[in-house]
Amino acid sequence: MRAGPSQEEIRRQNLGALLRYVHVHGATTRAELTTALGLNRSTIGALTADLAGAGLVSEGTPRETGRAGRPSLVVRPASERVYAYAYSIEVDRLRAARVGLGGEVLDRRDLDRPRGLDAAETAPLLAAALKEMHQYAPPDALCIGAGVAVCGMVRKADGLVRLGPTTGWVDEPLGTALADELGLAVSVTVGNVADVAAFAEHARGVAAGCDNVIYLYGDVGVGAGIIAGGRRLTGHGGYSGEVGHMVVVRAGAPCDCGRRGCWETEIGEHGLLRAAGRSEARGRDALLAVFDAADRGDARATTAVRQAGDWLGFGVANLVNIFNPEMVIFGGTMRDLYLAAAAQVRSRLHANALPACLEHVRLRTPKLGEDAPLIGAAELAFDRLLADPLDAG
Amino acid sequence: MRAGPSQEEIRRQNLGALLRYVHVHGATTRAELTTALGLNRSTIGALTADLAGAGLVSEGTPRETGRAGRPSLVVRPASERVYAYAYSIEVDRLRAARVGLGGEVLDRRDLDRPRGLDAAETAPLLAAALKEMHQYAPPDALCIGAGVAVCGMVRKADGLVRLGPTTGWVDEPLGTALADELGLAVSVTVGNVADVAAFAEHARGVAAGCDNVIYLYGDVGVGAGIIAGGRRLTGHGGYSGEVGHMVVVRAGAPCDCGRRGCWETEIGEHGLLRAAGRSEARGRDALLAVFDAADRGDARATTAVRQAGDWLGFGVANLVNIFNPEMVIFGGTMRDLYLAAAAQVRSRLHANALPACLEHVRLRTPKLGEDAPLIGAAELAFDRLLADPLDAG
Repeated sequence: MRAGPSQEEIRRQNLGALLRYVHVHGATTRAELTTALGLNRSTIGALTADLAGAGLVSEGTPRETGRAGRPSLVVRPASERVYAYAYSIEVDRLRAARVGLGGEVLDRRDLDRPRGLDAAETAPLLAAALKEMHQYAPPDALCIGAGVAVCGMVRKADGLVRLGPTTGWVDEPLGTALADELGLAVSVTVGNVADVAAFAEHARGVAAGCDNVIYLYGDVGVGAGIIAGGRRLTGHGGYSGEVGHMVVVRAGAPCDCGRRGCWETEIGEHGLLRAAGRSEARGRDALLAVFDAADRGDARATTAVRQAGDWLGFGVANLVNIFNPEMVIFGGTMRDLYLAAAAQVRSRLHANALPACLEHVRLRTPKLGEDAPLIGAAELAFDRLLADPLDAG
Repeated sequence: MRAGPSQEEIRRQNLGALLRYVHVHGATTRAELTTALGLNRSTIGALTADLAGAGLVSEGTPRETGRAGRPSLVVRPASERVYAYAYSIEVDRLRAARVGLGGEVLDRRDLDRPRGLDAAETAPLLAAALKEMHQYAPPDALCIGAGVAVCGMVRKADGLVRLGPTTGWVDEPLGTALADELGLAVSVTVGNVADVAAFAEHARGVAAGCDNVIYLYGDVGVGAGIIAGGRRLTGHGGYSGEVGHMVVVRAGAPCDCGRRGCWETEIGEHGLLRAAGRSEARGRDALLAVFDAADRGDARATTAVRQAGDWLGFGVANLVNIFNPEMVIFGGTMRDLYLAAAAQVRSRLHANALPACLEHVRLRTPKLGEDAPLIGAAELAFDRLLADPLDAG
């Protein structure tokens, strides 16, 4: 039960709204901001001056418009000066980037990730990548924090990875290990890769403007990032979206989680490779080889892909009945599977979903591609700045 | 992308917050309001004066406290003067109530509902119950609207019932039919019974203070009202929460929806009666007779109840993995089934849910009992008043 905000809170909200607008939309004229935010010109002027004073935006004249009269000043996010570090911990590699306000990747490093590294061994590698990139950041630049995308269940409170199917991690304190390596100057936020990618696609990708979105992300396992009513669904502890462990076959195939018949045993890497008669194979390349074989008419691969596509539609139908979304996005290996078996996915989805729940659903692939986890990890860090721009500055 | 609120919006938010507080908590001293809402004494005084001027609250001295000094004035919701009409459309009956601000049922009428009535035939019965109760309302009282709880999928925008398993309705315009009967003076909001009951339990029932809640409601079908991050999950069109149509058995038993193997075919009325060898029976009494027979040791009834309990735990585990809630509430026939087979429910839930998703989950039955749909329907109507108290007055 909260009362309305104080004067100071309103100013903070307005500063955050203006900064978020240029962060998402890029350079914007004062006139457009006035319309978009519903504030009068003098308020926009005062807010812009405050943000410019803190070095978060810059103002300048727009390019020649060819129209008469004094042009409206353009407000730009200070992308070169204000940035976040973003990490993505993936099966075989670690990715690190320096991402400017506005969402531009300014610098990046990719590292091999030997399987078997724990959080304490991973954190120094991430910190080293940061130090290397830091040398190239302008000396007066402002780092507003670091965000990390990782496969697995992440405790909201402190970034503990409870269960990471990709990494094999169980209760690995990634958030605190990385914070220890980076020191007090850089705050760390850890998020599940599907949540983070959903956040990115919602902020500046294919789901911009959609308030009800399911982003299905496949890797070794399958998880979902969910936007409901315009907000990220996190659940009580941060573990929501474990849709890969929706059991779809009682006494089905054994799952990495120790149970049987989880959805990901039918649509995940292991299940698809097993169905294609390639149980010994591993990794995304092996999976792409199956799609490729199916493309070339290999009967067993074709059957495996169609069957997995049918199961993909089956589970998505359940989620559509539960969430009534506007959009379902297929990311990671789910993108590959969806593109290889779209007919099966659609057919099963239409057979199993309730018509009312399905009627406005669009099926999409991500717009941000491979960079979505990095962009989303950066958004985790920017989110704090946008909530209270002058405090973080 | 919205900017912070204007002065006028803040005042409205504060008025709403104060009114909501006394609506939920009942009579509250100004001192408590100051603490609870984080506003200073003079602001609380001014807001209270505005609300009292509009007849929405009254102020008075509290009962004798035994303490020295001038007692803090007590603010009370004007329950006798400000009210909503609430309806619940159930399998065999129509329930109508006049509910005062503060959530007290001031008057009620129960009517038999012959199966087979459509929305146009139902609306006059609801309107007649309203007119009857209206005679007993104080002449200066203020009706702020009507809310309706109905089984089925309800379009958010206009209260069209897309599919009502209890009523057999398909695309019945309940919202507009009732609005036509009631006239312009009474605005109508229609909600799915599970959503509405969840809203009620979250506002003033067993889930008060819980931000992530699944309220599972059983009747002929099974649906869920979901609170995520403190807010009602509605989905894009208003159809979210159709968990009864999560398919759990491919090629399973036929469902009323035309598909096969939906969860409700295992835990709903028809499935349970079929498993107990009573396929011809119908309705809640028949269901209670099965639980009763199981209680008395009838082997077939016992097996049917245990099996349904296991399936109940199975589906709840899937939902726990998807939502990571703090609380699952079992309402309607799901309450009966949960109480009859709690051991099976818990056992399957613990076997199938991921430990991290399950670790803070409490299983509960509703606090508001049979009145939850009525209380929640009234809350739908009150919600508009609380969003902007002086406008609605």
